[in-house]
Amino acid sequence: MGFFLDTAPAMNLDQIRIVLTRPLYGGNVGSVCRAMMNMGLSDLAIVTPSLGLHELEVRKMSLHAVELYDNRGDYKTLADAVADCHVVAGATARGGLYRAHSKTIREWAPDLVASAQVGKVAIVFGPEDDGLNNEEVALCNRLIEIPSTERYRSLNLSQAVMVCCYELYCATDDYEHEPERSPEATSIQRERMYEFWEKALLNIGFMDDDTSDHMMQGVRRILSRGSLIDRDVRILMGIARQTDWVAEELRKHRDFD
Amino acid sequence: MGFFLDTAPAMNLDQIRIVLTRPLYGGNVGSVCRAMMNMGLSDLAIVTPSLGLHELEVRKMSLHAVELYDNRGDYKTLADAVADCHVVAGATARGGLYRAHSKTIREWAPDLVASAQVGKVAIVFGPEDDGLNNEEVALCNRLIEIPSTERYRSLNLSQAVMVCCYELYCATDDYEHEPERSPEATSIQRERMYEFWEKALLNIGFMDDDTSDHMMQGVRRILSRGSLIDRDVRILMGIARQTDWVAEELRKHRDFD
Repeated sequence: MGFFLDTAPAMNLDQIRIVLTRPLYGGNVGSVCRAMMNMGLSDLAIVTPSLGLHELEVRKMSLHAVELYDNRGDYKTLADAVADCHVVAGATARGGLYRAHSKTIREWAPDLVASAQVGKVAIVFGPEDDGLNNEEVALCNRLIEIPSTERYRSLNLSQAVMVCCYELYCATDDYEHEPERSPEATSIQRERMYEFWEKALLNIGFMDDDTSDHMMQGVRRILSRGSLIDRDVRILMGIARQTDWVAEELRKHRDFD
Repeated sequence: MGFFLDTAPAMNLDQIRIVLTRPLYGGNVGSVCRAMMNMGLSDLAIVTPSLGLHELEVRKMSLHAVELYDNRGDYKTLADAVADCHVVAGATARGGLYRAHSKTIREWAPDLVASAQVGKVAIVFGPEDDGLNNEEVALCNRLIEIPSTERYRSLNLSQAVMVCCYELYCATDDYEHEPERSPEATSIQRERMYEFWEKALLNIGFMDDDTSDHMMQGVRRILSRGSLIDRDVRILMGIARQTDWVAEELRKHRDFD
């Protein structure tokens, strides 16, 4: 990821709206807010919850993301909620008569993010119990599938939103690993350290001249597998020196016996 | 996805265990069960919930996946929960002194799925309020990051599990790496080896009781970075034993002086 990070302007998800149609449970709506904020989205729309939402449950699950709920848009119909959107992508169950052209969210994500740089994009989710109805699906010009096993196909609403927001966020290439704070040790540092190890392992009698090449290959394989930073090499060097010192001390004592 | 679906043998996730350490809320545990079943996982382990779990909440959120909860393994410690696992991957927050070598779950997923075809793999999550502690992180030989924005870094527990399970499930479709020929050492083998190292490093005077925790974190960081196969652990164990033996010999000789 991050191929064009230095030159391209940052992609952002400000123009992607998450639309919940007729949601039932406040807890799910709260979890949706948190998932959205975790992944850099902020525009939440809610279409007529049939029973009203349990506000306390919303707040309990949204935690620091409650501002998304407080700033939401309330709409009477899905058509109203997506009126200003160029792309309307509906999350649907697999199968379905008119749904053969759906793609997975991973396949769609780069297109959706690109579209969101030039206009508004809606990602639409149906209610917990039975998803989007045919009229609502008809308003969508993209259909999204979320992979899941046949054994239990139906995701919790907020989990479905999380998977979609996560894929959108990954498609922005915004996330960067924390860089290693300390530089990797140089080859000469590593080789010097291995010399001390070889000496120490010979002196403690872990190996002899005949087996040392073979053993040191094993030791190198273990220690050189990942990156070794300065501090690591200093630790390993310290262990070898101290081990060697102990072996020398033992020899001296024996010589005196 | 699904490029080789017709020809390649199916990868399965039966040998991947989701381990929740000290979870607080039954609702989250229920949501974890559902997310796991959605994505084809079934092995759930729980390490001593400090307050007990609200069973009704578990059942309410797990829905059809409640069987995963009923068939869970209960463990007293994380070490017990992962004792038979070759790969122990911990989900951690960004930052942290020894956590620079973590990768994202998308980067890890193919490796984790491949490892799960030849042995048991644990994916470990900390409690809702503050994640895995240092002792728990020390048991992990892989560290997982889940991308999220700086604005709100912390994911809900069940959402974090969902993202990981989703990535694992996606990785089953088209992953084709060659499996490790030799099985990775189990957690219990590795921990035994570290005990010997700690003893040896104390006895040669490389560290003392005050510095040993800090130093052993460094040693673990170096040695647990990649995969350690049986043979590697035997080599490392042999070095520690022999070092310790030399230190003991020295002490005896000194006592005679």
